[in-house]
Amino acid sequence: MPALRLDIEYDGAGYAGWAEQPGRRTIEGVLRDALEVVLGRRPEVRVAGRTDAGVHATGQVVSLAVPAGMDAPQRAAAADPDRLRRSLNGLLPDDVAVRAASTAPEGFDARTDALSRAYDYRILIGPPSPLRRARTLRHTGPPLDHAALDACAAATVGQHHFTAFTPTETQHVFFDRTVLECAWREGGDAGDELILRIEADAFLRHMVRVVVGTMLEVGRGVRDLDSYVALLDGAPRSAAGPTAPPHALTLVAVRYPG
Amino acid sequence: MPALRLDIEYDGAGYAGWAEQPGRRTIEGVLRDALEVVLGRRPEVRVAGRTDAGVHATGQVVSLAVPAGMDAPQRAAAADPDRLRRSLNGLLPDDVAVRAASTAPEGFDARTDALSRAYDYRILIGPPSPLRRARTLRHTGPPLDHAALDACAAATVGQHHFTAFTPTETQHVFFDRTVLECAWREGGDAGDELILRIEADAFLRHMVRVVVGTMLEVGRGVRDLDSYVALLDGAPRSAAGPTAPPHALTLVAVRYPG
Repeated sequence: MPALRLDIEYDGAGYAGWAEQPGRRTIEGVLRDALEVVLGRRPEVRVAGRTDAGVHATGQVVSLAVPAGMDAPQRAAAADPDRLRRSLNGLLPDDVAVRAASTAPEGFDARTDALSRAYDYRILIGPPSPLRRARTLRHTGPPLDHAALDACAAATVGQHHFTAFTPTETQHVFFDRTVLECAWREGGDAGDELILRIEADAFLRHMVRVVVGTMLEVGRGVRDLDSYVALLDGAPRSAAGPTAPPHALTLVAVRYPG
Repeated sequence: MPALRLDIEYDGAGYAGWAEQPGRRTIEGVLRDALEVVLGRRPEVRVAGRTDAGVHATGQVVSLAVPAGMDAPQRAAAADPDRLRRSLNGLLPDDVAVRAASTAPEGFDARTDALSRAYDYRILIGPPSPLRRARTLRHTGPPLDHAALDACAAATVGQHHFTAFTPTETQHVFFDRTVLECAWREGGDAGDELILRIEADAFLRHMVRVVVGTMLEVGRGVRDLDSYVALLDGAPRSAAGPTAPPHALTLVAVRYPG
């Protein structure tokens, strides 16, 4: 049974996150609605990153097994990935789109096969920017200490025990994650953003947002670097900083073998 | 009487354009509302580009004379441009912001002193992009002929008689405009946009949008280059193509002497 891979982009503002929940508008829900129309079945889907409510994606990856026993028109739709992509985009709301569709090896699983996920978190350090207000968190007050932010990011690379960076009530069982890249860069249309790129084998719920919220405390000088570094060894959630808002966070890429 | 210069950014989606009109939400209206609170007077403002409904700006420029006879607190507000900027941003809705405020030489007029205005028009040639849907026009159908688009852009540079590119019912008196730069470039987050940068001494109403709408006819092969070039000599509006939608257009810069 062949698999399909869908590369998805979405504006998370209007959604209660990825995961389907009864009575809530979710990305998974509207995607399965569209798949059901095209394939005549409501297939289970697997996703690389279960993004929170309000979080965006430009590089989300979804997989599904081609359902068995379809009628000829649906079989034809599934057999031509580019046609499937166009059909789905004709059905999806305009804040979710399939950017690419392709056939994948049998058994491909967007979640378990992923080697890493990468997110960007955008901080606007300049004056208010109306055209970027939906995608950036604006920093106000005294300037952030860029060197301190860079030191936090460098300390985050590697394998750590991230209990401090996810809610205490959790469905996670293991809290070790390996951060492959973590670095701030300057960017944005006017060069007035600080963007954290963080790539890890996997993330805990809220992890990027608590990392950012806590780093910003160090950048503002209300927490020192040693305190940040100590959190990476398995501190309680209460020892870390606030959860930064979701709207400035975007899942940008997922890596797979090969 | 000193002048103030305000550099403005706005998301035009929620506005009936720049120019104040009774009963309509306009950029000029909300800006003058904020100025009235800070300065205790409702000053006349001058603007570099009177953008249409739905058009955005990252580099709009506004000037105003500092009103005479203000009380001390208002005088102090006007005398400290950065404080004025922050005060205005505290009052403006979040889709309009003052990016910079500065004092300008007495008599500075953002409209008549401008040497040129520059606009970007963004065409998305890739699959649908939810996060860019508010700022790009998506091209569907067979691929655009990039060489034909480039030839149109090159032909547009120089002084021409732009009657074909503005509504027939017009308040304009002169229709000659000098285009200083006109070129398509590839851009966008995923490299899947064609962006027209057009800079001219001044623009007629709807001019960029009709230029784009007509160039796209050439890019799709339904109009030939000669037909486009002939329009630049003073053809009637009916001879040109459709007016491209406003949401993909942004005023990006205004040049002044010095």
